[in-house]
Amino acid sequence: MNIQDLKNKIREKNSYLCVGLDPDPSKIKNGITIYDFCIDIIEQTLPYTVAYKINTAFFEAMGWRGWKLMSNIIDYLKTKNVFVIADAKRGDIGNTSQHYAKAFFEELNCDAVTVNPYMGYDSLKPFLDYENKTTIILSLTSNQSAGDFQLTEMSNGNLLYEDVIKCTRNWEMKGDIMYVVGATKSHFLEYARNCAPNTFFLVPGVGAQGGTLKEVSEKLLTEDFNLLVNMSRSILYSDDPRKEVEIIQKEMNDHLSKILILQ
Amino acid sequence: MNIQDLKNKIREKNSYLCVGLDPDPSKIKNGITIYDFCIDIIEQTLPYTVAYKINTAFFEAMGWRGWKLMSNIIDYLKTKNVFVIADAKRGDIGNTSQHYAKAFFEELNCDAVTVNPYMGYDSLKPFLDYENKTTIILSLTSNQSAGDFQLTEMSNGNLLYEDVIKCTRNWEMKGDIMYVVGATKSHFLEYARNCAPNTFFLVPGVGAQGGTLKEVSEKLLTEDFNLLVNMSRSILYSDDPRKEVEIIQKEMNDHLSKILILQ
Repeated sequence: MNIQDLKNKIREKNSYLCVGLDPDPSKIKNGITIYDFCIDIIEQTLPYTVAYKINTAFFEAMGWRGWKLMSNIIDYLKTKNVFVIADAKRGDIGNTSQHYAKAFFEELNCDAVTVNPYMGYDSLKPFLDYENKTTIILSLTSNQSAGDFQLTEMSNGNLLYEDVIKCTRNWEMKGDIMYVVGATKSHFLEYARNCAPNTFFLVPGVGAQGGTLKEVSEKLLTEDFNLLVNMSRSILYSDDPRKEVEIIQKEMNDHLSKILILQ
Repeated sequence: MNIQDLKNKIREKNSYLCVGLDPDPSKIKNGITIYDFCIDIIEQTLPYTVAYKINTAFFEAMGWRGWKLMSNIIDYLKTKNVFVIADAKRGDIGNTSQHYAKAFFEELNCDAVTVNPYMGYDSLKPFLDYENKTTIILSLTSNQSAGDFQLTEMSNGNLLYEDVIKCTRNWEMKGDIMYVVGATKSHFLEYARNCAPNTFFLVPGVGAQGGTLKEVSEKLLTEDFNLLVNMSRSILYSDDPRKEVEIIQKEMNDHLSKILILQ
């Protein structure tokens, strides 16, 4: 699924919800396998969800068996006509990144993967070279210490996260890109949008981390959407995940209606 | 193995060589398994090598079977009394990084893991919290585009990679840290050393990428060593890996002798 397919899916489901699969064994009821837990979450949330984000860390913590499990869950998702993101935050010298790109775009067959821009253009080129795949670049993340470097001022007057967006959007690419911009950084959402008016933002930090869907939607939704809001813990460990996403989709539908009325 | 054990090992073997295990199936002779290829390299290089660096990308490109293979190779290395580094370049919000730290420090039982500083303190804290483990922070990498962001000037006059060293070295930690500083950035080696006079540097980029062992050793070796030089492709795909590392160790021995004479 590429970015255009994702836009069609957003229109079809009236939702820009991405559900993050971060299965923490210590939070899952005894007797339920992690595979069953994830499949159950997918089935409950599917009618209102356009994308799923697999957090590789939670699977890697279980060793190679975790990777096998991750692979099985991705295979299942690929039958469900949704946008599948590997949240892997990879990035290395070109020769190495080529192997990461192969791992996530070919071996696991994900539609998108998150990457870290710290090492510059040639570290991301192997990802950007894939047609019909999406490279999601960290810009301003949702964690408290994001500011340690991302909000440092450069001598050109930009903050580092702005520099990352302004540089990377001009890089040569065959596939598509998105940016990670954290909902918790509400003060910076509009600045980030100004740096890339027509690019998809993948926004974590709504829900358990404290950002609000209203603010993110008002500041970041564009005429042709360009927004995916990710929620993980607040859905996964809710008493009623289906109900939870139904409420979220209702609010998303309202925000989308305002956009569509304007067109 | 912790940093002190590594220093003892450097003294014992008169070598600060780290061999990078980046097994590329397209470069390995038909009929030889990747496991056998890696074990053979380890056996041939062991007398002259103090550390091995496993590049996770090359294993992930083979899916979960690759992770299993990586795990088996690490298990083998752990019986050889060497410093085992997972070159994984991870980093995420704290809740997620905790799972990465578990994956590499517990599940795979590596001595060290490389991490990306872009997301700031709380993204690395879960790694830094492990006693007797080493967190290796990317500072100035060896790739051509490293300068895109790492060599950008900040408004405080530092380049970003300098800021990374100067900030992170003051962070609270229970374990040890190292920095990745690329041999290809010869102009900056002394600046990097000045930012962290008594911290280990893991230096890639000697060999296939073009940096020289002489320059790196003269600029970065300190009284108590604090230097690991990594070589991967130039050893792995050499006609005679044992001979190759023997020559390298001889040169390292010369550089170490100069340091030890001064004491």
